[in-house]
Amino acid sequence: MRSVGSAELKSASISQLKDICERLRGEILRTVAVCGGHLSSNLGAVELTVAIHRTFSLPNDKLVFDVGHQCYAHKLLSGRAEKFSTLRKEGGLSGFPKRDESEYDCYDTGHAGTAISAALGLAKARDLRGEGGEVIALVGDGSFNNGLIYEALNSLHILNTRILIILNDNGMSISPTVGGTHDILSELKEGGENDVRLFERFGLRYLGPYNGNDLDELLPAMEEAKELLKTESVLLHVKTRKGQGHSFCEQSPMETHGISPAGTERAKEYSEALGEELSRLAETNPKIAAVTAAMTDSLGLRGFFEKFKERAFDVGICEEHACVLAASLAAGGMKPYYAIYSTFLQRAFDEIIHDVCGQNLPVTFCVDRAGITGADGETHQGVFDLSYLSFIPNLTVAIPKDVGEFRAMLRASETFDGPLAIRYPKEGRDGAVLPVEIGKFEILHSTISDIILFAAGERCIDLANGILARAKENGCDFTLVNARFLKPLDEKMLASRSERFVFVLEDNVRVGGLGDAIARFYRGDGREIFSYGYGDAFIPHGDIPSLTKKHGLDADAILREVLRCARR
Amino acid sequence: MRSVGSAELKSASISQLKDICERLRGEILRTVAVCGGHLSSNLGAVELTVAIHRTFSLPNDKLVFDVGHQCYAHKLLSGRAEKFSTLRKEGGLSGFPKRDESEYDCYDTGHAGTAISAALGLAKARDLRGEGGEVIALVGDGSFNNGLIYEALNSLHILNTRILIILNDNGMSISPTVGGTHDILSELKEGGENDVRLFERFGLRYLGPYNGNDLDELLPAMEEAKELLKTESVLLHVKTRKGQGHSFCEQSPMETHGISPAGTERAKEYSEALGEELSRLAETNPKIAAVTAAMTDSLGLRGFFEKFKERAFDVGICEEHACVLAASLAAGGMKPYYAIYSTFLQRAFDEIIHDVCGQNLPVTFCVDRAGITGADGETHQGVFDLSYLSFIPNLTVAIPKDVGEFRAMLRASETFDGPLAIRYPKEGRDGAVLPVEIGKFEILHSTISDIILFAAGERCIDLANGILARAKENGCDFTLVNARFLKPLDEKMLASRSERFVFVLEDNVRVGGLGDAIARFYRGDGREIFSYGYGDAFIPHGDIPSLTKKHGLDADAILREVLRCARR
Repeated sequence: MRSVGSAELKSASISQLKDICERLRGEILRTVAVCGGHLSSNLGAVELTVAIHRTFSLPNDKLVFDVGHQCYAHKLLSGRAEKFSTLRKEGGLSGFPKRDESEYDCYDTGHAGTAISAALGLAKARDLRGEGGEVIALVGDGSFNNGLIYEALNSLHILNTRILIILNDNGMSISPTVGGTHDILSELKEGGENDVRLFERFGLRYLGPYNGNDLDELLPAMEEAKELLKTESVLLHVKTRKGQGHSFCEQSPMETHGISPAGTERAKEYSEALGEELSRLAETNPKIAAVTAAMTDSLGLRGFFEKFKERAFDVGICEEHACVLAASLAAGGMKPYYAIYSTFLQRAFDEIIHDVCGQNLPVTFCVDRAGITGADGETHQGVFDLSYLSFIPNLTVAIPKDVGEFRAMLRASETFDGPLAIRYPKEGRDGAVLPVEIGKFEILHSTISDIILFAAGERCIDLANGILARAKENGCDFTLVNARFLKPLDEKMLASRSERFVFVLEDNVRVGGLGDAIARFYRGDGREIFSYGYGDAFIPHGDIPSLTKKHGLDADAILREVLRCARR
Repeated sequence: MRSVGSAELKSASISQLKDICERLRGEILRTVAVCGGHLSSNLGAVELTVAIHRTFSLPNDKLVFDVGHQCYAHKLLSGRAEKFSTLRKEGGLSGFPKRDESEYDCYDTGHAGTAISAALGLAKARDLRGEGGEVIALVGDGSFNNGLIYEALNSLHILNTRILIILNDNGMSISPTVGGTHDILSELKEGGENDVRLFERFGLRYLGPYNGNDLDELLPAMEEAKELLKTESVLLHVKTRKGQGHSFCEQSPMETHGISPAGTERAKEYSEALGEELSRLAETNPKIAAVTAAMTDSLGLRGFFEKFKERAFDVGICEEHACVLAASLAAGGMKPYYAIYSTFLQRAFDEIIHDVCGQNLPVTFCVDRAGITGADGETHQGVFDLSYLSFIPNLTVAIPKDVGEFRAMLRASETFDGPLAIRYPKEGRDGAVLPVEIGKFEILHSTISDIILFAAGERCIDLANGILARAKENGCDFTLVNARFLKPLDEKMLASRSERFVFVLEDNVRVGGLGDAIARFYRGDGREIFSYGYGDAFIPHGDIPSLTKKHGLDADAILREVLRCARR
């Protein structure tokens, strides 16, 4: 679409602004249909974004997005309309705010709950440096479950600065928002005076609730907030409708939260297998329970939640609490499964150590979206988990080679009496469900040569199979092992091998993962270790195969090294 | 002291109970004077603990301590009085609740904010398994700043179970409690009806506030809580006095929060140097700011906080928020230093990646209490930081060899424009303040031989110097390097060395730290790497030198290996 400048926004009539909103909505719909991305949350936030840009002077005034997936209209209004067709494509616009991309993006986000803390820091820095400009945090109600928000609110008095918090309340995270905070917000919408006092006690002037999809109502409210902000911090509570302006999205906000790009084939999803296997286990084992943090559907657990309501807990975007809850369910004699994306599990790192592994409790972490995840970029890649799980005492870490093996691992987990993490990507292929012994690798192809290759996880095993086929064309053969446990390693198998050249492939950063573990095991015995994984840099958004190759898993380069070794 | 059984407690008159309280207090004072430990918080919680043991039926009813450092009276009342003189000693009683130690300890804690989540999980497991018994979470007001508490409160409705939360409100963390939550609690103490509504909205019946040091007032309140708990979750708000019953502790609760064992010499503290250096930098550089999470004094920053009030932020026990605040202060042009204990920084792991390093912001992490910390045990050892910081892009990780070098690193940090972590133990020795170039190792002793030893941090360098002296006595010499950067490694120096045998010593778990990094660098060039650090187990409480030796840094064993290499 044609760029809309800030001068144009500021001088437009309300009816012209409504027209701009419709154009923004159309552009978002068209682009997301092609590029994929977050749809319904962006449609819901169009009027709100227009009102912010109209009322405030960005980029001198700063707008911090919580999570950041709702920033599309903001990007369209800040000089990036021409590039918007590159959204989420490699080298194109990010689907999240990026300081590197525009001065209108003042703080990068991707994980929930950081925006109020960040706005406070930016505002305090402004005060200390004697600068001007307002700071606005735009936060969805789903994030109001997250503990970070309360830690930030608790600091309002301490920091003695002024910010505007806009609560974009659509009643949803990806799933509907749950819990006591949701009830407090609901009461506010019904005029709950006492709940207003809660926010005032933290040091916020409460304004609202207003209809955030109605500019006639929203613009004066935004002006009032701006006026009050001159002397105090303000919470502007705005109700929006997720998917607003598009009937299918309005009716199906969960299904249209995230959209895949056009033409994407749907492979087998690991999450489906998780739902099926956990349900099967739960049928006969009353100890099985599931815990999620606002991701029930994406994790494949909707069916489980419907069938086993009593043993299914979606606690909202509370990754840490979910982890302690899983630990304590286990301490109380249950067998909990905590399903979560790899990147979000980082939030529960301390609780994995302190609560689960410190007490050696039988919690199973189902770590979804591991490895490079693609279009969401830096904040959503699951490329650190093998490193941050590698050194935690008592923890077992498993990496299935396909969906079938994932099922087998889940079945084996039922009687496994300790902390276990199973990490897997979003999609993959089916495969036989054969018994898996904890801590045992699997030989996929065996030969007598000086080269052995250990690969972990479906992508790396695919890569390895491709390398093996091409090596054979070049007269070279090697043994290929499915290194399906990072911890414990299959030390018996490792010790039994005599190959001089050891290759390791993992869909994780190269530091701290499987390559280092195997190298450590072989330390001092004269073998040469070639370990492949991602390099020492954050991996931006893009196409998964392309990013995989570019950031360290390049089949051509690995093949060359294999052939070089074969000639030695 | 003589054991007090639960039958005795239940049949005692109030005046007998008061007498028991005095005996408990005496025993705690005597033992902490010898063994060290948490004093004032335990003195303050004596009546509360007696009232809980009197009113409820432990261990069938379960008591979860938040943080857990206030559990001494509980230990004395649960069959451990005879062993109490071994408190915090190696092989003796832990200073924290431990499931392995007694069936009266139902959930291990050490870090703040987990108790309500844990109580909910235990209660829900009880419901699902059709068992009986009540679950009680005992939480200090300091923890009520922590986000985890709100995540747990948010779940009360979702989980549909019953717990009793006892808020032990002494107005303190280690430092006085700060922030909006504190204000809410203060209002409650003055009868703030609206604040009571806040807790009721989350699904808690509010009772209080009561004087938690007065059994006449406390016992009926506890009985009332027990009665209400039959049908709903209850928050019992109790005011206690930290240090109660001991005049010096009452007057100096901060100074008597943690007590060192009798006869401990006070070495040079790294924290003092931190305070002095940051203050010096702040004198001339208006961008310098300090952020802490309720640990200002222990981190050496009291002076800085008094001198530079405007740029000093203690946000309470909010490790994650503190990290985002530091990131956003940096994004706003400040130069923040976030000082924190190694084990507590685990709580901010995601924010280190997502907020600080993802945006490549110049936040300096001052990581205190790194390595084995001794008497506090598993939950307080700082032995994972080199591993969890080793793989984060954009981060520089420094390990000073003494207090002088720590000062030099802090001075170098002022102009360093990226994320930096400096990790150090509590105490050490002085040393010259010589300029440090980021990423450069230092040769401490140079010779021509086949052996080189890299040591990181004061303890390992001391260990290495001892090994060197004894090696020389045995006619063996080796080069000793101060490997003061984990990231980046001094690749230039590493590449220039030709020794065949490479030894690495680090005060951290062996997996994922410096040993793996140096081994990775030398991979494939035929050297033999011998890497020493802690093994794959949680390290319990004990004496630092003894634990260090037992868990992987054994000078005798390392010397033997060095001598074996020298003979090859």
